[in-house]
Amino acid sequence: MEGFRSAYDIRVRFAETDAQGIAHHASFVVWLEVARVAYLADHANGYRALREQGIEALTTGVRVDYLATALFDDVLTIRLQCCDIQGARFRYEYRVEREGQLIATAETLHATVDATTHLPTRMPPWFVEAVARAEQAA
Amino acid sequence: MEGFRSAYDIRVRFAETDAQGIAHHASFVVWLEVARVAYLADHANGYRALREQGIEALTTGVRVDYLATALFDDVLTIRLQCCDIQGARFRYEYRVEREGQLIATAETLHATVDATTHLPTRMPPWFVEAVARAEQAA
Amino acid sequence: MEGFRSAYDIRVRFAETDAQGIAHHASFVVWLEVARVAYLADHANGYRALREQGIEALTTGVRVDYLATALFDDVLTIRLQCCDIQGARFRYEYRVEREGQLIATAETLHATVDATTHLPTRMPPWFVEAVARAEQAA
Amino acid sequence: MEGFRSAYDIRVRFAETDAQGIAHHASFVVWLEVARVAYLADHANGYRALREQGIEALTTGVRVDYLATALFDDVLTIRLQCCDIQGARFRYEYRVEREGQLIATAETLHATVDATTHLPTRMPPWFVEAVARAEQAA
Repeated sequence: MEGFRSAYDIRVRFAETDAQGIAHHASFVVWLEVARVAYLADHANGYRALREQGIEALTTGVRVDYLATALFDDVLTIRLQCCDIQGARFRYEYRVEREGQLIATAETLHATVDATTHLPTRMPPWFVEAVARAEQAA
Repeated sequence: MEGFRSAYDIRVRFAETDAQGIAHHASFVVWLEVARVAYLADHANGYRALREQGIEALTTGVRVDYLATALFDDVLTIRLQCCDIQGARFRYEYRVEREGQLIATAETLHATVDATTHLPTRMPPWFVEAVARAEQAA
Repeated sequence: MEGFRSAYDIRVRFAETDAQGIAHHASFVVWLEVARVAYLADHANGYRALREQGIEALTTGVRVDYLATALFDDVLTIRLQCCDIQGARFRYEYRVEREGQLIATAETLHATVDATTHLPTRMPPWFVEAVARAEQAA
Repeated sequence: MEGFRSAYDIRVRFAETDAQGIAHHASFVVWLEVARVAYLADHANGYRALREQGIEALTTGVRVDYLATALFDDVLTIRLQCCDIQGARFRYEYRVEREGQLIATAETLHATVDATTHLPTRMPPWFVEAVARAEQAA
């Protein structure tokens, strides 16, 4: 999986299913966030660290393409990569898989703002470097 | 319904169902909160007003007894009454009905704290009086 | 609002907020569904009617662009239109507004399948006609 | 922890927090279910196995007492034990802890029904025995 160096597993909760007997499509949006939080924990001291520096990362866009349904208790692998950090904006791409089968692809857009003023604020250099290291690691 | 003078309707969302084909039991806990927020809006200037005064109302206990299942698109009536305001603590009782059939009974416990210090803080007198008026109204 | 003839209001629940103090971005995906269900109830006898005919409408794609944050207790207007019904596929477009301010735009893609076989099945003619009437109404 | 032989960890998701900056109280109800599913997987071939035998376990009651707040990214340990299996009814007790601190206690009540007829159906003997083994293990 060229470029998707980071991967995290989630297990579909019963509360995340719906009356169609499948994982509700909004659950995927939550799982993408779970993967981002785990990614930041592994590569950039965690999202909590970013928040403690007075920076909030807002989600400004979400796109999910659902290729197959996921079921209760399925273990899904969320592969992700952080791309295109530009000033106060960055982007993640995702592949959601179940035992090698592609279940969904996704993309999220983010903007960092000052937690107090809510004005856009550039990603700190240590964050940019941490992501660069994460994505270039062999 | 002696004592249950306030009632609010919700409609079961598809996202609130689960793979058993019924409304997930955790959804009821959210609906109780929706009813509390509507109750405060009608009787005490709203929960937002309370928060703007630097008071947060924490939920310290929840009990739900499920008597019948609720289905997608059902309109449920949440009847509630605020009871036993004592210093920094108060309690709500609920009856969840569908076309007159009792679906669940519930109870929630709450404590008010200062939003900054998180120390217990008594409910302000205007709140106590507003609830008393709401519950004694003919 | 040319073309967006249908609109439904939702009120942001406290459970739908997050620790950023705003409505969580995944909540919007649920609200789009609430609006679709209301749209079908108004124009095509309801989603339950579709399901009772053995047809399930799957969500195959979601895109949300967030332009401004929404807060607890905000009343949001979800404007939507059903577009591009083609065989077993259709699409909705959305504008989420708060007192005239555009908060988000969105799009969802759907495919209809037979509830038993899970094979793609064309939208029934009465559904196609009902949507056409809804979108062409003056 | 006498009697609480099973324990599962969850990590508080950002989507599970609310505008009070804490984990929303309804999230705990979902976590109890996550722990029950893991318990069944460890001790009784999983909840999916039960469902494949045409048995559904309904939740007929929930009680949670919140002793302390939980925060984003907290790792919580859900200890649980299955008690009082009687015919078609059983009960779980829970202790939710964070690094040894008790955050909440809880209890859920369940009834097993035939998935088709929705009539009460006794827990199968293999399930009763599996739970007995789980709870009596040294």
